[in-house]
Amino acid sequence: MAIALVVLAAGQGTRMNSDLPKVLHRLGGAPLLAHALAAGQRLDPERVVVVVGHGAETVQKAVAQIAPEADCALQTEQLGTGHAVAQGLMQIANFEGKVVVLYGDTPFIRPETLENLVECTADVVVLGFEAADPGRYGRLIVEGDRLARIVEYKDATEAERAVTLCNSGVICCDATLLASLVRGLSNDNAAREYYLTDIVSAARARGLVAEVVRCAEEETLGINTRAELARAEALFQARARAEALENGVTMVEPATVWFALDTWVGRDVVIGPNVVFGPGVTIESGAVIEAFCHLEGCHISRGATIGPFARLRPGAELAEDVHIGNFVEVKNAILGEGVKVGHLTYLGDADVGEHTNIGAGTVTCNYDGVFKHRTTIGANVFIGSDTMLVAPVTVGDGALTGSGSTITEDVPAGALALGRAKQINRPGLATKLFEILRAKKAAQKKGA
Amino acid sequence: MAIALVVLAAGQGTRMNSDLPKVLHRLGGAPLLAHALAAGQRLDPERVVVVVGHGAETVQKAVAQIAPEADCALQTEQLGTGHAVAQGLMQIANFEGKVVVLYGDTPFIRPETLENLVECTADVVVLGFEAADPGRYGRLIVEGDRLARIVEYKDATEAERAVTLCNSGVICCDATLLASLVRGLSNDNAAREYYLTDIVSAARARGLVAEVVRCAEEETLGINTRAELARAEALFQARARAEALENGVTMVEPATVWFALDTWVGRDVVIGPNVVFGPGVTIESGAVIEAFCHLEGCHISRGATIGPFARLRPGAELAEDVHIGNFVEVKNAILGEGVKVGHLTYLGDADVGEHTNIGAGTVTCNYDGVFKHRTTIGANVFIGSDTMLVAPVTVGDGALTGSGSTITEDVPAGALALGRAKQINRPGLATKLFEILRAKKAAQKKGA
Amino acid sequence: MAIALVVLAAGQGTRMNSDLPKVLHRLGGAPLLAHALAAGQRLDPERVVVVVGHGAETVQKAVAQIAPEADCALQTEQLGTGHAVAQGLMQIANFEGKVVVLYGDTPFIRPETLENLVECTADVVVLGFEAADPGRYGRLIVEGDRLARIVEYKDATEAERAVTLCNSGVICCDATLLASLVRGLSNDNAAREYYLTDIVSAARARGLVAEVVRCAEEETLGINTRAELARAEALFQARARAEALENGVTMVEPATVWFALDTWVGRDVVIGPNVVFGPGVTIESGAVIEAFCHLEGCHISRGATIGPFARLRPGAELAEDVHIGNFVEVKNAILGEGVKVGHLTYLGDADVGEHTNIGAGTVTCNYDGVFKHRTTIGANVFIGSDTMLVAPVTVGDGALTGSGSTITEDVPAGALALGRAKQINRPGLATKLFEILRAKKAAQKKGA
Repeated sequence: MAIALVVLAAGQGTRMNSDLPKVLHRLGGAPLLAHALAAGQRLDPERVVVVVGHGAETVQKAVAQIAPEADCALQTEQLGTGHAVAQGLMQIANFEGKVVVLYGDTPFIRPETLENLVECTADVVVLGFEAADPGRYGRLIVEGDRLARIVEYKDATEAERAVTLCNSGVICCDATLLASLVRGLSNDNAAREYYLTDIVSAARARGLVAEVVRCAEEETLGINTRAELARAEALFQARARAEALENGVTMVEPATVWFALDTWVGRDVVIGPNVVFGPGVTIESGAVIEAFCHLEGCHISRGATIGPFARLRPGAELAEDVHIGNFVEVKNAILGEGVKVGHLTYLGDADVGEHTNIGAGTVTCNYDGVFKHRTTIGANVFIGSDTMLVAPVTVGDGALTGSGSTITEDVPAGALALGRAKQINRPGLATKLFEILRAKKAAQKKGA
Repeated sequence: MAIALVVLAAGQGTRMNSDLPKVLHRLGGAPLLAHALAAGQRLDPERVVVVVGHGAETVQKAVAQIAPEADCALQTEQLGTGHAVAQGLMQIANFEGKVVVLYGDTPFIRPETLENLVECTADVVVLGFEAADPGRYGRLIVEGDRLARIVEYKDATEAERAVTLCNSGVICCDATLLASLVRGLSNDNAAREYYLTDIVSAARARGLVAEVVRCAEEETLGINTRAELARAEALFQARARAEALENGVTMVEPATVWFALDTWVGRDVVIGPNVVFGPGVTIESGAVIEAFCHLEGCHISRGATIGPFARLRPGAELAEDVHIGNFVEVKNAILGEGVKVGHLTYLGDADVGEHTNIGAGTVTCNYDGVFKHRTTIGANVFIGSDTMLVAPVTVGDGALTGSGSTITEDVPAGALALGRAKQINRPGLATKLFEILRAKKAAQKKGA
Repeated sequence: MAIALVVLAAGQGTRMNSDLPKVLHRLGGAPLLAHALAAGQRLDPERVVVVVGHGAETVQKAVAQIAPEADCALQTEQLGTGHAVAQGLMQIANFEGKVVVLYGDTPFIRPETLENLVECTADVVVLGFEAADPGRYGRLIVEGDRLARIVEYKDATEAERAVTLCNSGVICCDATLLASLVRGLSNDNAAREYYLTDIVSAARARGLVAEVVRCAEEETLGINTRAELARAEALFQARARAEALENGVTMVEPATVWFALDTWVGRDVVIGPNVVFGPGVTIESGAVIEAFCHLEGCHISRGATIGPFARLRPGAELAEDVHIGNFVEVKNAILGEGVKVGHLTYLGDADVGEHTNIGAGTVTCNYDGVFKHRTTIGANVFIGSDTMLVAPVTVGDGALTGSGSTITEDVPAGALALGRAKQINRPGLATKLFEILRAKKAAQKKGA
């Protein structure tokens, strides 16, 4: 059965009090929209349409990054969920199969739930949940196995309000049927909007069957304010941490480790307090991440030890047993097995061979003000402390650079490179200099 | 109506187990006393008197910094709250108007509450609160609108103990009347102290009217132990975080952002996990503060990106679109629009022109062991990595310094400055050196 | 009365999902096993035996470090707690006195509880606790003061299941008697294991007296999963933080300070948010530890100020009034009174005299690729920024090194040492270079 996703992402999100469209606010380091799309993509959909409206251009750009295969449909006026779905369906006019309608601000829906949804054979399938406190949610009124209708809270009778089965808004329906049902919607209501929920009674009126598939309330959590977003983040992290613990990750204080949507951490990896994962991090079994590390877009292999106070940026590829110490930044650099970078170093746009030792205070000078250049360091090299490697430059295997050297030319394998002045000691001069300075200070004080 | 504040700050705070006077322990980065004073100052008082006693000298110095317009009254012996107020009133003997008595260890009182207090026309106004668990608080016994008396818990009948309206200790009263009432207090009680609360029955005995103004229990929270201080800090931060979220600040994990009393953060500012604000920080809309930043006394403009692992210290003024990267410290420095300081740098006592790029490992050598000096860098300058700028020194617009240079003399605009030795490669020498070292090690092992 | 400890540490801990033996997972920076041993050692035991099995070699190595005086007994097959104790007793065959059986995965037992245990004069003493939710714990069935028997949950009647006094597993018994009781155990049960608990009925059958000593439920908390370990860590930290607050330590946000088992912090020490203590840290009264510090194996004296973003590693000994600033690492180094190390520095294997100032970007180059060497700096020295101190090297009292110098030879007292090239300004060359680079870029763009 072919599947298409229609993801509604046109809302303004006024209560976010933000210039950024709501669906682009981040959860686990990824836009809210990416979460809904990730769940939907587990259905292996033939088509994906994101309905954009508020901040359309910005959202469209984000969609191109998150899901390049997706199309965007523009909803120029916000005339309700039914209208939004209609715009989405126009984009996939010839599609035949089932359509699942998702929401860009509802990030917790589980792929398993969506599978249940598409496997249900009713004509219209609505995702519902038992609400602990149903409050002002729309109620799902069932008759036996069938969904009779969806009642908005404000239109509900006392008896209907006592129902705790609520509407998530997520539906599944044959594409042609859905298009036909949506076309028939009316906006004859107080808000002058076309409500997607009205398709249930419309379907019933045609003698069709509607059913409810149930999920956990948590999955339907929508986000409308920054406080709700913060709570959603807490929930996301709580899940990610629990999952990591179960998978055999050691965390001294799980509550201070922040995972991204795509973080992958192997068994027996040890993670200290206060570690932040940006997107795109994978860590092999048995690596150690000390406290106060910030990792993003990097790969850390077995046996590596990182931090504390390390920052790995996109393109950092660390082979087995690499050691990255404190106040070290690595970006777009491939480090061979057993490389050690202990202290106060910037390695950017670099290749470093096996078992090379990088001294404290080393900098790959990769930027000349206009272009970026690459530094290549061989295996078993000893880079002395405070070596400036002015890229493009190559240091051969087994070479050595003297502390405090600025290396502007290639260093052959096995060579010692020095780029520093000889030391001169001027006896007694420090004493004299300080005498002068202190005398000056004393004079100033007297004068003041 | 003229207002005077009398703030009691003489207590020892024995249960804090500290040499620091209790009212100087910090909440939101500011002494407890500063919180009470900040609330009181919203009444625009004509006079402010802080009654000091325990650690008088230290507290007095702090008052001079927090509220230079305030006077201090010394209470040499701690003979009770009534006695303390009497000392305060002596300091403003000729003042005519209303006096509000506040407490230096009660930081959460809201300015709106104090406004309600001074607007009440009764002769003596007492601030009360409905206690969830009244415990051993003094009870306010009311008759209709009037406050009949304040009963200490230990003197209260069963019926009185059932009352949940409790005494905050904060009062408001005409200055002359208050002086007269306080003069009449007796210390004929177990503790041999003069209790301020006794003025209510004294006023009633004179046929005067006492009334209660109510506030939230939270506002009256006093601090007696470090554990209570920690809880107060949690409450302060919870409020500050909620307010920031409402004002449109994005925080990945609000629970790990620490605000100071005077932090100002604009709309759509993004703040990562683990950011600490010291006093005096303002951040314009749309700036990004990454994880693990420590900010104090600085201004960050629109479009700036800071961190992770950045430290901004007092006097750091960052114009629009400045980028401060990791392991960078900026102190007393003005950075022009678009300045980039990416990695491992100390900028202190400096002016940097627009669009200048500061390479990794740069240091402004601002201290000669006796004096501090300033570094001036022009616009569109490229400071090469590991440049030492030995202040006082000036680098002109569009100039360039070579990586690894020590700059001791001014660099003209457009000039290239180099202060480094030429590189020499000694072929095969690294190989030889390591052979010798390894042989030595092998010999040592053999010998051992 | 001589005491021997038998600590069971042979279990596999399958539910930890880890290659590391369960008892070596860490709590408060120390292996679980170290906590049980620390409590037991307060009884001043004559003998200590750790029964190892799963991961025996690794555990044995750890025991040698944690408690060098302890012996290990190997349980090659895991045949139950009774069998494990038997292996332990064989190791101390000639010991006379009381044996206390402890568990390597039960870290919270209090020394006071163990004292109560050994003071009890019954023949067999079992440690019990009143469980809030007894669940599947074994029940202690008492008759008056006597312990009648221990019933496993699965064998218990309804009435027995209603009992809330539960078995901790910890017991105390005369060594000879215990050996005899354990020898008599049978494995005639579903699991084919020898249960230590069966010694109670065996003792009763011999007409001996068993009694229960009670402790708080928390003390008996065992750890079986990583989630439980994380909860145990939270409990450990909550206790350590509360204790520190009571002892007069100021913590801005106690929930973000991580203590180790042996952290010692003096009165009025101020600790900012996000401070991590590894093992072996002592801090004298009145020192200040700013946010984002990572401390391990170091001593900090009175008046010292550390951080933010400082890392002190084992062997860092800081005298009074030392200042360590941001992005500074100190390892195996002794710093005299008033030494200042403000920014971006690595001090390793060094001695620094009183009142010496270390400039930003300084590195002690202590490693030559094979050997480590020591740097000695005198008193009142001024190390200029970005000085490389190539060890072994000595800088005499009152000397000065110029910024950007590489110091390879000793500097006499009072001397000025310079090891840097003279600055050359090439007028207009920066302008020309940038013109060329920009033209190249423009050409590339055109070509592309």
